[in-house]
Amino acid sequence: MTTDDIRTFFEPRGVAIVGARSNLGFGYGIPIMLKQQGWADRVRLVNPSVDELHGLPVYKSVAEVPDPVDLAVVLVPASLVPRMLDEIGERGIRHAIIESAGFSEIGDSGRKLQNEAEEAARRHGIRVIGPNCVGLVNTSNNFSTVEIIEEALVPGSSSIIAQSGVFGNCLLDLLHEYKLYVAKAVTLGDRMDVNECDILDFLKDDPDTKAIMMYLEGAADGVRLRSTLERVTRTKPVLVLKSGRTPAGSAATSSHTGSLSGEDQLYDAVFTQTGTIRAANLEGLVEMTRMLSTQPAPKGKRLGIVTSSGSLGVMATDTAVGYGLEVPPLPGAVAEKLRGEAPEWMNVKNPLDVGPSWLFSKALEAMLQDPDIDMVLAITIIPYAIFRELEKMGFDGSGWFGDIAEFKKAAPDKPLAVCPMGHSAFVSHMSEVAGRDVPVYLSPEPAARALAALYHYWTWRDGSGEGGFRQCY
Amino acid sequence: MTTDDIRTFFEPRGVAIVGARSNLGFGYGIPIMLKQQGWADRVRLVNPSVDELHGLPVYKSVAEVPDPVDLAVVLVPASLVPRMLDEIGERGIRHAIIESAGFSEIGDSGRKLQNEAEEAARRHGIRVIGPNCVGLVNTSNNFSTVEIIEEALVPGSSSIIAQSGVFGNCLLDLLHEYKLYVAKAVTLGDRMDVNECDILDFLKDDPDTKAIMMYLEGAADGVRLRSTLERVTRTKPVLVLKSGRTPAGSAATSSHTGSLSGEDQLYDAVFTQTGTIRAANLEGLVEMTRMLSTQPAPKGKRLGIVTSSGSLGVMATDTAVGYGLEVPPLPGAVAEKLRGEAPEWMNVKNPLDVGPSWLFSKALEAMLQDPDIDMVLAITIIPYAIFRELEKMGFDGSGWFGDIAEFKKAAPDKPLAVCPMGHSAFVSHMSEVAGRDVPVYLSPEPAARALAALYHYWTWRDGSGEGGFRQCY
Repeated sequence: MTTDDIRTFFEPRGVAIVGARSNLGFGYGIPIMLKQQGWADRVRLVNPSVDELHGLPVYKSVAEVPDPVDLAVVLVPASLVPRMLDEIGERGIRHAIIESAGFSEIGDSGRKLQNEAEEAARRHGIRVIGPNCVGLVNTSNNFSTVEIIEEALVPGSSSIIAQSGVFGNCLLDLLHEYKLYVAKAVTLGDRMDVNECDILDFLKDDPDTKAIMMYLEGAADGVRLRSTLERVTRTKPVLVLKSGRTPAGSAATSSHTGSLSGEDQLYDAVFTQTGTIRAANLEGLVEMTRMLSTQPAPKGKRLGIVTSSGSLGVMATDTAVGYGLEVPPLPGAVAEKLRGEAPEWMNVKNPLDVGPSWLFSKALEAMLQDPDIDMVLAITIIPYAIFRELEKMGFDGSGWFGDIAEFKKAAPDKPLAVCPMGHSAFVSHMSEVAGRDVPVYLSPEPAARALAALYHYWTWRDGSGEGGFRQCY
Repeated sequence: MTTDDIRTFFEPRGVAIVGARSNLGFGYGIPIMLKQQGWADRVRLVNPSVDELHGLPVYKSVAEVPDPVDLAVVLVPASLVPRMLDEIGERGIRHAIIESAGFSEIGDSGRKLQNEAEEAARRHGIRVIGPNCVGLVNTSNNFSTVEIIEEALVPGSSSIIAQSGVFGNCLLDLLHEYKLYVAKAVTLGDRMDVNECDILDFLKDDPDTKAIMMYLEGAADGVRLRSTLERVTRTKPVLVLKSGRTPAGSAATSSHTGSLSGEDQLYDAVFTQTGTIRAANLEGLVEMTRMLSTQPAPKGKRLGIVTSSGSLGVMATDTAVGYGLEVPPLPGAVAEKLRGEAPEWMNVKNPLDVGPSWLFSKALEAMLQDPDIDMVLAITIIPYAIFRELEKMGFDGSGWFGDIAEFKKAAPDKPLAVCPMGHSAFVSHMSEVAGRDVPVYLSPEPAARALAALYHYWTWRDGSGEGGFRQCY
């Protein structure tokens, strides 16, 4: 399958919703959403027993659907799917997303049905995503075959490949709260045809995608996954959460028949050798993707930490060093800039704990500008009861910690992360102060780990370091 | 120091605020907060140059402060502290919390000052918490020498020992958002006198405290810490985050002179041998404390998982099994209860993925009631776009997933955790559905890990298992 073949899934000229319906379900929600997103003139609803839905005409059969239409989204019960694929093929549509469940994931009876569907698709040359998935999202044209909230359609630079539907859907519900914005997202389901490798190759050339996060329970084709990753990670970072890594976990997957079946060490080897970053859990996947999709390649491994809490500086240092970064002595030039202003109680070292002094902003700028610091972590904490008082006096987070978004603009080539631990209102505020280009973490360890992942990806890519950054379990 | 000696810090009859002031700072905020919390008649402000603050009288010196007063909170600059301790001692006050910074944490000059303060305290028999701390919180009598938000005073069953002030303070800003409510919290600072062992022994006998979470950069006295932990963990769980575990992290601590100085393996040994649970990071500390402070001892290690997402069930299984739990086959009785109702596409196994069926509630109840399941994880996810539609139709989270708080009441002896990944509004809603006695996790791995910590603590305590549950880095 070529990249252009996949493109039609994301950029159809027109889409038929086969199984649109008037009561709750995907067939009800998806047409509403597409209409709201500006697709009213390009969405064709199909249902033999309804005339109109949400003010849109409903066609009795796929055959009646007018042009343009080059993608079908199939929502009918599993048993009807093979026949529906015949109708889709006869109508000349060559791309289908089958969201219906009840195929290979349920065992023998479903497997038989899936074989029938596969034959129908092959007969007509139809490319299929699914079955048992929720399709895809493309934020660049507001196209989604998933019922998602509006916030999930804010365009971003991360793309998602998820094996499972409902998981991928709920993931989209929360990512924007972490300031992780999406370019494209696909859920693969039972992978009758299109699998993670097809999507990886497509995303490799997608200009909107800066980093790819992937959730896998097993590879559709282990050998191909390896060669695909080798290609893709040379162009952009791929982060993977591979579950089913324990025998019990593997048994819990709905389809644990991949060619690398359950051999977790094999997966580790593939990921290491291809420079793929392996997350140990969902948080790790999200946190590291946010860093890799927004921050540039660091020039080296020297991390500068500016903090208003000594303890959080220590925690960040432990994690950074544990994952292979260096927290070097404070560069002389930074110390020089603070000399004369630092109160007696301040330890002028790295991590630089400025405590309740007014020096945070100055220290952060100095770190960002210093050539002997390769990346910076700003730990911006302040008790909320005190912050509320400061706000009453006209101060906000940028007044206290500096205009971080502006600092970043002045130092675009230096990776920067912000960690505002505390009350959610304060975190939200600091998230705005940091701006869209600076990732924000709720505690120091994930921030330090994500910076380490960034460093290791780039040293692997330029050949100076080993691949296979792996978050510990 | 006896437990009664420590009690006065938490339950003073009256408190003198030495260094109350009219402009921003601890001396400004703490009196306001104490007044708001009902302490107006028991708080005595001291400042030679002010007559009245916040409608409260201000005394020129400690000598003038009327009874009752058995605790002094010292907020004056470091250089004045030794003299102030003399005045406090002469007034007959035997407990002081020194919040001022500028002592041993800043090096030689501060060390000298600390020695002077220590001598003064000893001369008068004054017990001291601090210096360089923010004191303590007792939610049972609304007493706090820390400026905190109102939500942090909601009484709960976890108590906190933190070496650092601002960190402890900001931790209190966020815990209530995780439904972790506090009994008592102390920040220790430079530990001139009172250290973590004194507090551990006190909390051991505190009826409000069910679990103790502790942040340490180094032990004040390693041998005593070991013997203290041995005592305390036999009575209630202690969870520790020990930072400074790498050489760079240790060098970053303000005082790395403890008797176990930086030997992380020694700490690991102490924690293992005393059944102390070691967290690898802040999230782990919070997540496991929430579980240990609210859930009962499980009867065994058999975890039942009910989920609306197969993938999240797999992730939970991996983590649970990786940390020593068992995810056994689905008990026959549970399968029996679902027979006839389970749709064809449902795999009736453990983890039990009920998908979009109506069976979540029934399955969860069956798991909770089954004698062959020792603890239960309910993974309650649903795409938010769909949940909003359900809400319009009159359903809420309890309608879809069951009245989880009620289920817990019917099975009080079985540990239960809920994981509602997704939009924050949905998470908040499910957090309410779960009720105060059921901890809620934002993703499956932390939930499974916390259940494992619970199991390992109790098998260590009853002698059937090894101690030293340790979250991996």
